[in-house]
Amino acid sequence: MPHSRQLHLGAFMRPVSLHTGAWRFPGAYPDANFNFKHLKRFVQTLEKACFDAFFMADHLAVLNMPVDALKRSHTATSFEPFTLLSALASVTERIGLIATASTTFDEPYHIARRFASLDHLSEGRAGWNLVTTSNPDAARNFGREEHMEHDERYRRAREFYDVVTGLWDSWADDAFVRDTDAGLFFDPSKLHVLDHKGKYLSVRGPLNIARPVQGWPVVVQAGSSEAGKQLAAETADAVFTAQSNLAAGKRFYADVKGRMEQLGRERDHLKILPGAFVVVGDTRDQALEKRALLDTFVHYESGIASLSIALGHDVSPFDPDGPLPEIPETNASRSSRERVIELARAERLTIRELAQRVGGYSGLQMVGTAVEIADEMEQWLVEEGSDGFNVMFPYLPEGLDDFVGKVVPELQRRGIFRRAYEGATLRDHFGLPRPGNRFFEGR
Amino acid sequence: MPHSRQLHLGAFMRPVSLHTGAWRFPGAYPDANFNFKHLKRFVQTLEKACFDAFFMADHLAVLNMPVDALKRSHTATSFEPFTLLSALASVTERIGLIATASTTFDEPYHIARRFASLDHLSEGRAGWNLVTTSNPDAARNFGREEHMEHDERYRRAREFYDVVTGLWDSWADDAFVRDTDAGLFFDPSKLHVLDHKGKYLSVRGPLNIARPVQGWPVVVQAGSSEAGKQLAAETADAVFTAQSNLAAGKRFYADVKGRMEQLGRERDHLKILPGAFVVVGDTRDQALEKRALLDTFVHYESGIASLSIALGHDVSPFDPDGPLPEIPETNASRSSRERVIELARAERLTIRELAQRVGGYSGLQMVGTAVEIADEMEQWLVEEGSDGFNVMFPYLPEGLDDFVGKVVPELQRRGIFRRAYEGATLRDHFGLPRPGNRFFEGR
Repeated sequence: MPHSRQLHLGAFMRPVSLHTGAWRFPGAYPDANFNFKHLKRFVQTLEKACFDAFFMADHLAVLNMPVDALKRSHTATSFEPFTLLSALASVTERIGLIATASTTFDEPYHIARRFASLDHLSEGRAGWNLVTTSNPDAARNFGREEHMEHDERYRRAREFYDVVTGLWDSWADDAFVRDTDAGLFFDPSKLHVLDHKGKYLSVRGPLNIARPVQGWPVVVQAGSSEAGKQLAAETADAVFTAQSNLAAGKRFYADVKGRMEQLGRERDHLKILPGAFVVVGDTRDQALEKRALLDTFVHYESGIASLSIALGHDVSPFDPDGPLPEIPETNASRSSRERVIELARAERLTIRELAQRVGGYSGLQMVGTAVEIADEMEQWLVEEGSDGFNVMFPYLPEGLDDFVGKVVPELQRRGIFRRAYEGATLRDHFGLPRPGNRFFEGR
Repeated sequence: MPHSRQLHLGAFMRPVSLHTGAWRFPGAYPDANFNFKHLKRFVQTLEKACFDAFFMADHLAVLNMPVDALKRSHTATSFEPFTLLSALASVTERIGLIATASTTFDEPYHIARRFASLDHLSEGRAGWNLVTTSNPDAARNFGREEHMEHDERYRRAREFYDVVTGLWDSWADDAFVRDTDAGLFFDPSKLHVLDHKGKYLSVRGPLNIARPVQGWPVVVQAGSSEAGKQLAAETADAVFTAQSNLAAGKRFYADVKGRMEQLGRERDHLKILPGAFVVVGDTRDQALEKRALLDTFVHYESGIASLSIALGHDVSPFDPDGPLPEIPETNASRSSRERVIELARAERLTIRELAQRVGGYSGLQMVGTAVEIADEMEQWLVEEGSDGFNVMFPYLPEGLDDFVGKVVPELQRRGIFRRAYEGATLRDHFGLPRPGNRFFEGR
């Protein structure tokens, strides 16, 4: 008998791994950014393991780092998400495919159309990671010197979402009758012209593509600000979030699900999936050694730049092999600064070790045997810290193969993760209802 | 021994066919707009026949027609090009994949990135059909009530092209050294920041994707105005054009190639491919019967609306079975109006017949046996009317299978069309050089 609650697993990836040193790890594929064969193999492996979804990290600029740091990492370039996920759609059958698209730097007609098209191509497996794009370097790639202010970005995002979902509802599900004898291809009473004129957007419609297979592709969000959490509670089907420990995860979970209840939405209709960086070993010590080895591949130039950014303070003048001195308050994000200082203290790290950890990956990690990792994931599920995880593999292909070969079977043995896909669409995998068409059925 | 000059063949398609009555033709797939399996089969068949490229028609709006006409046709909706072509990239190996993207309603950073990504995914088979988008309904889907004026659109297009190609050159071809021992992923001296600030566009760069496999994806244009022909002569690798007969084709060919010579470009470095609607029969009469049968599937409501649009005059009050009366001069495009009136006179068509012809397809057609069609294509090639054709199949799958099974072998027998791909990329198929990187090699 399976548990009543089941884990949901997404894979949050870059082609070479999210960890900036991973391209130098033994067995890595340093050329994976532009080698589709590797991506195809990864995603087909995830599908065999019944993952809910594959999600490719994305940015609209080369990452904002000093070039002496940037040149040490594989993360500056890779495939564009719509093209990559569409290519993967035709070599997979069941796994969900989630792409990031920005409400600040793209047009709702394009976004609605591309996700609808990906949803048709994949027969109902598309997801939209709706981001407002906080990176000021992106603004300069799109004709703007000044980046839009945070709350304004969120107000535009809310309107953008209404327009995109309204465009998805341009056609009733049964609009296309294709009656060859009568010569009637569609029923014009089942076509809706949106004619939206709002504060930020003016979009006439209708969309030139049939309603998506899922009604609406799955909408994912990742904001953790007040505006971000409220937008998610109002509109998201899933939230990808960074939570550094179970206690923080539980607070976030209760917060967002509580907001949903206040809005009259069912708690189950949004899945909360924190990112988890998972390093599997045959023993706990072996897993710890792998993580330590991985961090040695973060070049010091790259790590110290990342650390300085996280602290909002140039720490390169200090002795790399000494402890982190007191750092004054700065304009850097307070949560990132405090998290890094706390990490240095808790693990008594030198500046070099801290730089390599932060430059590699320093969020929530699970390091241990398959049983230990399954224990931890189950605890998050049972204690309502999450509905599953967005798993990050530390190095590829080994980290992915370890997770799929060792952790997934342990989760399945415990009855908290599927052994086979039960449904066909990403909404099915996440246990989400198919939205009604607001113009033809109400919602 | 093959001829020195070879035909180049693109397939210009909609999923159900470009002909608005084709969804009712015996054996058609009326559901092909959203059935990827059909598209996959079509493109794999074209690849077996060694076609240079597959090109999907596109619009950024539901076509501007009265709904009583629109509802009679399959052409209102279909897949979005980037997602479709990317999905096709992973189920094909050699055929070129050409997508339309608008310089008026999209951002150069997105366009550069998506085509670069498609080029990497397909290992060098991407092509960009650069359009300025003349449809005013598209403007209303992108927040603009007033459409940009024609010459202004072309000036923006020229700057847009410079920005996109500049972004493609962000990285030298050998920028990514991936030296795992030294921890150096790329050579920063091989990264160029565009920092473009022009009249219409401001784009910093660099592009967050490696230089395309082809250097630059193939750039296709279709404009036939003075500004369009000049832009093509300056920038295009191929031109898709509508030419109603060989004499017109020869004038266009000489005009564009002449402009190239004046600009110091080699004539061979741009391929001119007029659209040709090809109906193959075992006899000429059978082919004519097929074309006539196809036109009967154009519903009168749809045909009369198309005819009225083409003439710029509502002709629905006239007797459908009578001849076309004198039509006053109007605001409609003069060339389209004159072409239609000439067609009615030359073939003594009733209004109904004319409506069904114009509503279906009324441009250049080749109707006959495989030998007759090959004769006509060879004549265009030899007399410098074109470098090949953008073939339109009247109905699917039969029209495509007829062309591939009957006309292609005849062209191959004559030594004017390849029997096997010689190169790997779309540039190879078209016989085009790979552009040097303007920032690292000059051009």
